[in-house]
Amino acid sequence: MSKWYFEKGDQGDIVISTRIRLARNLDEFPFPAKLDAAGKNKVNSLVKSTLFANGGNDFSYIEMKDLSRVQAVSLAERHLISPEFASKKDGSALILSSDESVSIMLCEEDHIRLQVMKSGLALEEAYDIANKLDNVIDGKLKYAFDDRIGYLTQCPTNLGTAMRASVMLHLPALTRCGQMSRLASTVSKLGLTIRGANGEGSQPRGDMYQISNQITLGITEETAIANLKSIVLQLVAQERAAAAEIIKNPAEEDKIFRALGVLKNARLMSTDEFMELISVVRLGAARGIIDTPVEKINELIVNMQPATISAANSEADNPAARDAIRAKAVREALS
Amino acid sequence: MSKWYFEKGDQGDIVISTRIRLARNLDEFPFPAKLDAAGKNKVNSLVKSTLFANGGNDFSYIEMKDLSRVQAVSLAERHLISPEFASKKDGSALILSSDESVSIMLCEEDHIRLQVMKSGLALEEAYDIANKLDNVIDGKLKYAFDDRIGYLTQCPTNLGTAMRASVMLHLPALTRCGQMSRLASTVSKLGLTIRGANGEGSQPRGDMYQISNQITLGITEETAIANLKSIVLQLVAQERAAAAEIIKNPAEEDKIFRALGVLKNARLMSTDEFMELISVVRLGAARGIIDTPVEKINELIVNMQPATISAANSEADNPAARDAIRAKAVREALS
Repeated sequence: MSKWYFEKGDQGDIVISTRIRLARNLDEFPFPAKLDAAGKNKVNSLVKSTLFANGGNDFSYIEMKDLSRVQAVSLAERHLISPEFASKKDGSALILSSDESVSIMLCEEDHIRLQVMKSGLALEEAYDIANKLDNVIDGKLKYAFDDRIGYLTQCPTNLGTAMRASVMLHLPALTRCGQMSRLASTVSKLGLTIRGANGEGSQPRGDMYQISNQITLGITEETAIANLKSIVLQLVAQERAAAAEIIKNPAEEDKIFRALGVLKNARLMSTDEFMELISVVRLGAARGIIDTPVEKINELIVNMQPATISAANSEADNPAARDAIRAKAVREALS
Repeated sequence: MSKWYFEKGDQGDIVISTRIRLARNLDEFPFPAKLDAAGKNKVNSLVKSTLFANGGNDFSYIEMKDLSRVQAVSLAERHLISPEFASKKDGSALILSSDESVSIMLCEEDHIRLQVMKSGLALEEAYDIANKLDNVIDGKLKYAFDDRIGYLTQCPTNLGTAMRASVMLHLPALTRCGQMSRLASTVSKLGLTIRGANGEGSQPRGDMYQISNQITLGITEETAIANLKSIVLQLVAQERAAAAEIIKNPAEEDKIFRALGVLKNARLMSTDEFMELISVVRLGAARGIIDTPVEKINELIVNMQPATISAANSEADNPAARDAIRAKAVREALS
């Protein structure tokens, strides 16, 4: 089945993807940190059987201990699991839909971390899918829930809705104009946070940013989503305006085509250089300067990450071999 | 008629071109430095009528005063006249064959500077053509000639045969290996000189070098040519060996394709960057790594020089416009 990132979504020139993540815990079990492997496996089995009994879903159940290191890191590169979860073994499991739009980490920080991803800006749609799956589990298993507080989570920052809504944005023009720190400071006053695409503390690579709600307490899911959506649409408008200004400069058009020329011809390509060049090319594609579809670029960004390459190519077992395989794949994808 | 540089010549992977230049003066006139415009025009008319009467040649007669600045500099860029001659006006003229293989400067430093160019390594052939034209003039006009010394020239360094035989070589691998200063010192002991492609005192651009005989006194033309040819063939062998070694490195292959990618995609391209990148690409073409014919690259190098672009494009009247026109022409030539 085709992966979610093959599609171009709403505001797809700038918005890469939308993610809704719900944290849930089962009432009758301690948090995972207090559970041994047998206890975790019991939690995992309960959630698995509930969801698999539901039917109509195209889910796989993956035990983390069965994955190689590159397979696990590749899942993190595709944002299907957290980077920390990639190191988990006994007692940690993943439920994954075949299009990779639904991924459910079992016994990460919480018993259940249910995540739905969609291409482009699709907060309501993603929340709707997450909510339906949440209801399926809620119909069978008793959640840890407090009428006053809401959902109980191990980390107090998630208490309440325990929902994190995130939107991944490609903001090359605002980055170039030096606007990002100002914007980060502005959105933080609105209860949102902007960070690099790889989550907390990460540097933005390829001018990719993740904006998400910070507040989960005293606010409904709908309000949190509406707030986030409104700010995202403002950022999108600002990026479009900045990009329109930037590309008027013939030197910028030149830069875009040079980046494309290197990507289409290089024989060796590191991840860092790839991310830098593909960001420039994506700006050109988003603004119609070059005719590569942005969804093809999004797909390439996912597939060209190091562990994802190594997981797909047995010979990519060292950086030099990986750089050659990456260069070849990039050439083929863009030619 | 197709220009001489459209053809691939002998040793064409490394040898760009061969040039024979004969300096001659008419016995009954003082050297040009001592002639006024009327006197120069008289010399020019005599040579012109002699050569044009000969028939079988496809010559144009060009008075330097009739050329624009860019037209004159473009002739120098194509090595059809000396850089100094490009500034000459009244009393200076050029006889040029339609394929640009024969160019005769009239009243440059000497009355006659007869030059024959051929693609690749073709010293004997070029000398043969030059010699025949020389005989045509010699049959009608009396040269300044001394039985003991040979041909008399204004500058004593040309006395004797007054022949300068030059071969233009592309030596990227020897340059990269840091061999050029050693080689320059070696060939100078053999009565030859290596310098940048634009003549005395010029820096090598695009790894292009001109090797020529220094000695014109006490040596026959045939011996000078045989010496030069032997050294050129040794340089060619050394460059091939160095290149074969260099291209084993995957990073070099990568560098060649990246240079090609930038040339095929850039929207702005300065002369300096063009020369740097085309040298890398020519190494790849010469060694069969990329399939662009080297003669096509040679032609591009000639046509992409600044005054040659400006002479061919009226809108290329400033560096930025020229860089855009160059980038477009390079893209079209290499795609």
